Amino acid sequence: MSTPNVIRIGLCGFGTVGQGVWKHLAGARRALESRLGAGIEVHRIAVRNPRKARAVRLPAGRITTDALAVAADPKIHIVCELMGGTSLAREVTLTALRHGKIVVSANKALICDHGAEIFATARRHGGHFLFEASVAGGIPIIKALREGLVANRFPRIYGILNGTCNYILTQMEEQDAPYASVLDEAKRLGYAEADEALDVEGWDAAHKASILAWLAHGVWVKPRQMVVEGITRITPADFKNAAMLGYGIKLLAVITRDLDSNELSVRVHPTLLPEGSVVANVSGVFNAVSVTGDVVGTTLYIGRGAGQDATASAVISDIADAAALLVHGKGSHLTAAETLPARNGCRLAPPEHIKCRYYVRLTVKDQPGVLARVASVMARHHISIASVIQTPGEDDRAASLVLTTHESHERAMNATLRDVARLASVIGEPVLLRIGDFND
Amino acid sequence: MSTPNVIRIGLCGFGTVGQGVWKHLAGARRALESRLGAGIEVHRIAVRNPRKARAVRLPAGRITTDALAVAADPKIHIVCELMGGTSLAREVTLTALRHGKIVVSANKALICDHGAEIFATARRHGGHFLFEASVAGGIPIIKALREGLVANRFPRIYGILNGTCNYILTQMEEQDAPYASVLDEAKRLGYAEADEALDVEGWDAAHKASILAWLAHGVWVKPRQMVVEGITRITPADFKNAAMLGYGIKLLAVITRDLDSNELSVRVHPTLLPEGSVVANVSGVFNAVSVTGDVVGTTLYIGRGAGQDATASAVISDIADAAALLVHGKGSHLTAAETLPARNGCRLAPPEHIKCRYYVRLTVKDQPGVLARVASVMARHHISIASVIQTPGEDDRAASLVLTTHESHERAMNATLRDVARLASVIGEPVLLRIGDFND
Repeated sequence: MSTPNVIRIGLCGFGTVGQGVWKHLAGARRALESRLGAGIEVHRIAVRNPRKARAVRLPAGRITTDALAVAADPKIHIVCELMGGTSLAREVTLTALRHGKIVVSANKALICDHGAEIFATARRHGGHFLFEASVAGGIPIIKALREGLVANRFPRIYGILNGTCNYILTQMEEQDAPYASVLDEAKRLGYAEADEALDVEGWDAAHKASILAWLAHGVWVKPRQMVVEGITRITPADFKNAAMLGYGIKLLAVITRDLDSNELSVRVHPTLLPEGSVVANVSGVFNAVSVTGDVVGTTLYIGRGAGQDATASAVISDIADAAALLVHGKGSHLTAAETLPARNGCRLAPPEHIKCRYYVRLTVKDQPGVLARVASVMARHHISIASVIQTPGEDDRAASLVLTTHESHERAMNATLRDVARLASVIGEPVLLRIGDFND
Repeated sequence: MSTPNVIRIGLCGFGTVGQGVWKHLAGARRALESRLGAGIEVHRIAVRNPRKARAVRLPAGRITTDALAVAADPKIHIVCELMGGTSLAREVTLTALRHGKIVVSANKALICDHGAEIFATARRHGGHFLFEASVAGGIPIIKALREGLVANRFPRIYGILNGTCNYILTQMEEQDAPYASVLDEAKRLGYAEADEALDVEGWDAAHKASILAWLAHGVWVKPRQMVVEGITRITPADFKNAAMLGYGIKLLAVITRDLDSNELSVRVHPTLLPEGSVVANVSGVFNAVSVTGDVVGTTLYIGRGAGQDATASAVISDIADAAALLVHGKGSHLTAAETLPARNGCRLAPPEHIKCRYYVRLTVKDQPGVLARVASVMARHHISIASVIQTPGEDDRAASLVLTTHESHERAMNATLRDVARLASVIGEPVLLRIGDFND
C-alpha cells in the first residue's frame, strides 16, 4: 500500500464505545492530522439496526448493515471492531486482516478466545492488530508492558481489572450493605449489565488477565485453565473481619511467574490486601494494575477501566498508532503483529501449585467443641492456623468462625475445606478467600 | 541508512546510569534481538576517567575518553548521552543528531535548557531524540503522554517528580524529625546528593515539569518563569497542622491549562493534599504522576523515580524503540523528532494568575491582639480566612499561628504576606504553602 493522503476508518459497531470513538475522534482529529500530515476520515459505519435510537445520531451517508463489507472495503485502511461478541467479530477481524488492514479492537473476549488465530493471520498478511482498549480502559497498560517496560521480565502483575466488581465491593464496604442490594443499585446506575454474570463471576477479569499474561509471558492461558472466583459469596461481615485483620478486599487478577522454575500462574479471585496498600484504596469503578519488573521494580497504573470516554481514549490512541504505521512506514516492531511476545520456556503451573495465606469463613453450630474439630481437620492436612475470630451468627444457634492460615498449598487447602464442610457442626459451604501480602 | 544487521550503541558516560544500562542491556539483549531480528552491540563507551574505580568493570577494548568521537562515529547508530551536565552533553547530543543518529538521553537539565535547539536539530537532520528516562525514572510517562493519551488535551497534570524530596518529607512526617537531620540521614543513605540544592530547592522537579508541560502543551517553560519553591522551610509542625486539617504535604509539580482561556500554569511547590488521596500516600523515593485528560479522565502512574535500575529500564525502552526505527523504517510519528507537540494557542499565565487555597504559618509574639492585627491585614487584601490554629511556640513568649484561606489570587496573597511580615508582632518570615484540593 502506498502512503495514503487520507486514512479511512471503518467503524464496525456504533454502540456506547463506537459513539464515543466517533465523538472524541472529531475532537482530536485536527491535532492528529497535523501530527500525521494526513487526513483522517470515518468512511463507513456498520450497525446491526440503523433505526435503533442512539444518543449520537448516525451520520448520514456512511451507514451499512454489512460489517463484513466494511472489513473487505479496499478504500478502508483501519477497521475498528467495536461490536462485541466473538462470532461475527471474529469474522470481521480475520477478513480485515486478510486484506492487510489494521484492526483496532476493544474486544477482550475475542482476543482471549481467538488471539492465537488473530495474531497469526495478522502476521501472515502483513496486517496489524491493536488492542489497547481491551484491558483497563483508558490506562495505556498494553503499551507500557509492550514498549515502556520492554527491558523487564515480570515476576508479578496484579490488579483490579473489572470496574463493576470494584464498584460493588466498594459500596458493600462503605455502606455495610449486602451484595444483592448493591448489585441492584449498580444496575440502576448503569455500572452493571442486566446480565451481570460475566463481571461478578470473574470471567471478564479473566479475559483481561489472559491478555496481560500473553503480553508479558507469551503464553495463552484460557480462563478455564485458571482459578476464577467471583464476588457473589462475599458478605459485609467479610469486610469487617478483613478490617479487623488489617486488610481490605478486592477482586484481583494475579499473574505470577517464578523466574527460577519458569512456572506461570494466572488467576482471578477476591483477595485480602493490606489496607495501607495503594491498590486496596482504589475504589469505585477505577481499575489499577501493579506491574513488577525485574529491572524497574514495581510500577502502578490507575484510571477508569471502562465507560465510553476512557475506552474511546484507548481506541483513538490505537488509531493514531495505526495511522502512523500507514503514513510513516512499517514502524515500531513493538506494535507489529509479527513480533509476538517470547515464551522463553515459560509454562503454566497447575492451580494446585498456588501457595498463599488463606482466609476461611465458616458458619458453625454454636456448641462446644466446634473449634477443636475444625482445628484438628486443619492440623491433619498440615495447615497452620494464624488467627481465629469467632462472632455470633445471624441466629443464636449459629456462630461465624473466621480462620486465617500461614502460607499453605492450594491442594492441601482444598482437601481441608472438603473435610471441614463434612463436619456435622459446620453449616453450608465454607467461604475461602486468598490473602495477598502485596505491600508495593 | 540501510537496514543494519547489528545495531551499534555508543554509551557516553559510565556512571551509575551507564553501568545500569550496560548491566541490564546484557540481561535483556537476547529477548530484544529476537524481537528485532537484528543484533544489538554496545560498540564504544566514553568515560572521562578510565582509571576511576567503578562497581561494574569497564569492558576492555571499547573505551575512549572522547565522547565527541563516539557521537560522530559512523559505525554507531544510537548514542546514549548519560554523562549529565549541559555543556559537553549538549555538544555530544547535537553532534550525534547532525550525523543523523538517534540520541537517547536521561538528562532533564539538558532538555529543559536546550530542548528547542535539540529537537530542531533532530528534525533538520532526520535524527531522533528519545528521553523516556528524563522524567519519573522507570515509569513510562513520556510514552503515555505522547502516544497512549494522544486523544486528550490535558487540563491538569501534577505529581511527585523528585524522589529525594519525597523521601525527606516522608521521613519528617513519619519520624517527627526536623529537615536538617533527615537530610543528613538521606545523604548518608545515598538518597540525597552531597550538594542537595538542585533537589531540595525544587529545580530538579522544575526541569521535569518543563518537559511534561512541553509534551502536553507544546510550550517550553523555563524554571525561571515558574514559581519554584523547595522543601527547606517545612517543619515537623507543618505536618501536624496539615494532619489536623486533613492533609498531607508533598512537593508537587503542577501543570494546569485552562481549556477556555488557554492559559498555562507550571509551578513547583510544597502542597497540602487531602490525606485520603492516592498521591498523598505515595511515600519514600517513589514518584507519582496524575494526568487528567479531557477524554480519559484522571489516570495515575506510580513507580521508582530514580536510581540505577529504574532509569536503566527507561533508557533500554528508548534503545528498543530506536532500534525498531532503524530496523523497520521510520516508524511511529509519535517518537519521531519531526512531530513536535502542537501549541494550539496555549500561552503561559503570569504566576500571579494562580488561584488556590493557602496555608500560612506565622511565628508571632504571644501577646493580646496579634490575631486581630493579622486578620485585619488579610481582610484589607480581601483574603478570606477558612481556619485558624494557634499553638504554643518554641519558647513561651512566641506562638505559632496557622491560617488557611478560601480560594485567593497569588497576587493578593503575596501582598498580604508582605504586609503581615511587617507587623511588629510577627517574628521572622511567614511560611506559605499551597493547598491542592485534588481528590482524584
